Amino acid sequence: MKNKSAHILIKNGTVITCNSEDTIIHNGAVAVQNDQISAIGTADFFSDWEISQFIDAQGGIIMPGLINTHTHLPMSLFRGLADDLPLMTWLNDHIFPAEQKHINPENVRLGTLLSCAEMILSGTTTCCDGYFYEDSIAEAVYESGMRAVLGQGVIDFSAPGVPDPSKNIKNAVLFAEKWQGRYTTITPSIFCHSPYTCCAKTLTDAKNAAEIKGILFQIHVSETKNEVSRMKAEHNMFPVEYLGYLGILNKNTLLVHSIWINKKEIAIIAKSESNVSHNPESNMKLASGISPVPDLIHAGVTVGLGTDGCASNNDLDLFQEMDTAAKLHKAAMLDPTVLDAPTVLRMATIEGARAIGLDRITGSLETGKQADIIVIDTNKPHLVPMYHPVSHLVYSVRGSDVRDVMVAGKIIVKNYNIQTIQLKNVIQDVSIFSQSI
Amino acid sequence: MKNKSAHILIKNGTVITCNSEDTIIHNGAVAVQNDQISAIGTADFFSDWEISQFIDAQGGIIMPGLINTHTHLPMSLFRGLADDLPLMTWLNDHIFPAEQKHINPENVRLGTLLSCAEMILSGTTTCCDGYFYEDSIAEAVYESGMRAVLGQGVIDFSAPGVPDPSKNIKNAVLFAEKWQGRYTTITPSIFCHSPYTCCAKTLTDAKNAAEIKGILFQIHVSETKNEVSRMKAEHNMFPVEYLGYLGILNKNTLLVHSIWINKKEIAIIAKSESNVSHNPESNMKLASGISPVPDLIHAGVTVGLGTDGCASNNDLDLFQEMDTAAKLHKAAMLDPTVLDAPTVLRMATIEGARAIGLDRITGSLETGKQADIIVIDTNKPHLVPMYHPVSHLVYSVRGSDVRDVMVAGKIIVKNYNIQTIQLKNVIQDVSIFSQSI
Repeated sequence: MKNKSAHILIKNGTVITCNSEDTIIHNGAVAVQNDQISAIGTADFFSDWEISQFIDAQGGIIMPGLINTHTHLPMSLFRGLADDLPLMTWLNDHIFPAEQKHINPENVRLGTLLSCAEMILSGTTTCCDGYFYEDSIAEAVYESGMRAVLGQGVIDFSAPGVPDPSKNIKNAVLFAEKWQGRYTTITPSIFCHSPYTCCAKTLTDAKNAAEIKGILFQIHVSETKNEVSRMKAEHNMFPVEYLGYLGILNKNTLLVHSIWINKKEIAIIAKSESNVSHNPESNMKLASGISPVPDLIHAGVTVGLGTDGCASNNDLDLFQEMDTAAKLHKAAMLDPTVLDAPTVLRMATIEGARAIGLDRITGSLETGKQADIIVIDTNKPHLVPMYHPVSHLVYSVRGSDVRDVMVAGKIIVKNYNIQTIQLKNVIQDVSIFSQSI
Repeated sequence: MKNKSAHILIKNGTVITCNSEDTIIHNGAVAVQNDQISAIGTADFFSDWEISQFIDAQGGIIMPGLINTHTHLPMSLFRGLADDLPLMTWLNDHIFPAEQKHINPENVRLGTLLSCAEMILSGTTTCCDGYFYEDSIAEAVYESGMRAVLGQGVIDFSAPGVPDPSKNIKNAVLFAEKWQGRYTTITPSIFCHSPYTCCAKTLTDAKNAAEIKGILFQIHVSETKNEVSRMKAEHNMFPVEYLGYLGILNKNTLLVHSIWINKKEIAIIAKSESNVSHNPESNMKLASGISPVPDLIHAGVTVGLGTDGCASNNDLDLFQEMDTAAKLHKAAMLDPTVLDAPTVLRMATIEGARAIGLDRITGSLETGKQADIIVIDTNKPHLVPMYHPVSHLVYSVRGSDVRDVMVAGKIIVKNYNIQTIQLKNVIQDVSIFSQSI
């Protein structure tokens, strides 16, 4: 017989589970014991349970925290620094100089805390990051209470914290060794920048190192048309084809962007069981293009959603990203049925978790999984009437409607207030930082 | 010498004027006397003024209220009723039956109050609407304190409140006569549904009636590919060409959507000084297509932003609409420089006002204009750092960041709380209504 008690019961809401049957429980509740979900059911089911603490959703939505599959956390420091520019002008004249001047462990910590605060307050409980000084990032993310997959960056140039590129893989491996198994919420990874900024040896060595550690290998690929022409000229192969040829593609690989890919490459991704992170707003803002996401999903590829770094978005709100993803592909394909609301919600939850290798522990509300749960306040004029809660989550809810957030059973946002980060201090420090730019 | 006193001073913010020079005043303030803006300047400028009431922007942004150039206000009652469907299934199986069953003066009033609450709370101070039972809409909008251009619908079918289509124009004229000059915040208009649902006589009679009254003539045009084929088959003309041929196009005409238009039609619109309402999110969600907005603007056409009815969006947040507009056209044209942040902000403010004929009284902060002003709270993690406030308004601010709203000098949102609508009652009534669907 089951133990009829729980530390916390989140009750009085519509429970959107995002489990394999997309189960929705009206007037439902979720029980949390320590860091796990111990039971999910209707109000009646819990009527004779002993509960230590209640969270009353007040008729709102109880759902899994969102999964942001691609971030560069410290780049929130450069939010809105430069917009509406050609990619190379933006990078070479604004972002790279700002990074060169300002990216150090202290600022990386500050930018990460800012990004975590924004993400947590808008309902994201897990992110997958790639940057430099990832050690400082890991410390700040851990402090914020978020769950994350974090990859130390690998690139064949001198980079922040890695002046000698010959040490890039060694550095990434040291980072992985330091963080693997240390905290349940932090999972290390290796992040190669791209097939055009890493040589074949770097790519294969990094992938081999990731495989030995059993961790995720992340890489930007086919983000721009220009990248494709370059790879064709240098290797006589399309970028994804090239990665396949190098043996980089398997179920522990996350391909970020994957915009300019052809049918053959989609088949290669599907066959290799590699995963894709789709970042529609960043891809639109930088005019990179539109990833063929409906075709990828049709081919059976796991596709998660991501915001990309804040400087090309310019926010980290996954609710807005869902809205944009659902609409963009309808316009691009002139078909209002593609990427329907349930599909997009899954991209931002369980499919995102699967894409970064965390689907067994988060991304859906299921007994035994980690208690990564958010509560949406639907008592607002833009959220009534509510005929279909999933439609609202994709098309009407904003990040600012997230009332409570729990990660691994710990309440990190309570009635719109973040519990883990000194928000006032972070905002003040960021404002001071911005005056030095 | 100027009178150095004002009823209200909105102070301590970055003033974004949206005037013809896009003037921005750091540490600025705006003085309001009765219903008008009486002065704009730096903090110093007002140091010796006598002020009755202060609104402290606390370092946030002071800007003109946004202009939503296309709504069907009561349709918020059908928010999320049906999504991700082909246009004709959506209309014929869901929206039209729901309208037929539920659209009556009482529900129109309820839906309008709901839409006004959502718009006001997210910083929209003026909307341009077209629907049926527009009389009930006008009463509710007036009660909400918003400014609006309101058009009684004209269509060659039996419609809610107009069972006999032969009376459609007479009805629209009666509406205009009732509301013209009654309140400064309510401006009547005539709204013909489209060139394919109104015959040539209806279109020309309606336009003539609007011209006699000196009011705006609104019409949906070239929303779908199918409409274009139909018009070509029936009239051997493209839709805009046909409207031009009928003499419908002049500076008092608002062409809503204008998606499937060719170069010749763009030239016709520009030459006639007709205006365009661009509704990117609705056009994406319904997979209608992407309007050639950069080309329209390049040709000198005044283009405003709109959300369309809530059922095809599914919200009325113009801040999100700005973000989407700025990004969509970059992706569509593979050019990150098109529709830059200042251009899009103008579409949502002064250009929107111009498109609906209200640019002399609202849409920018200028001395002598109506005091339609909003204050954005930027003391939030997703709004720091702030290098360029206009970038933030387009790419980072959400409707939920609007702290205070004033229309015609009257404070209608105070510290996030709406003053004119009993929100709790409206939400409750809408929830009860939704159970009858």
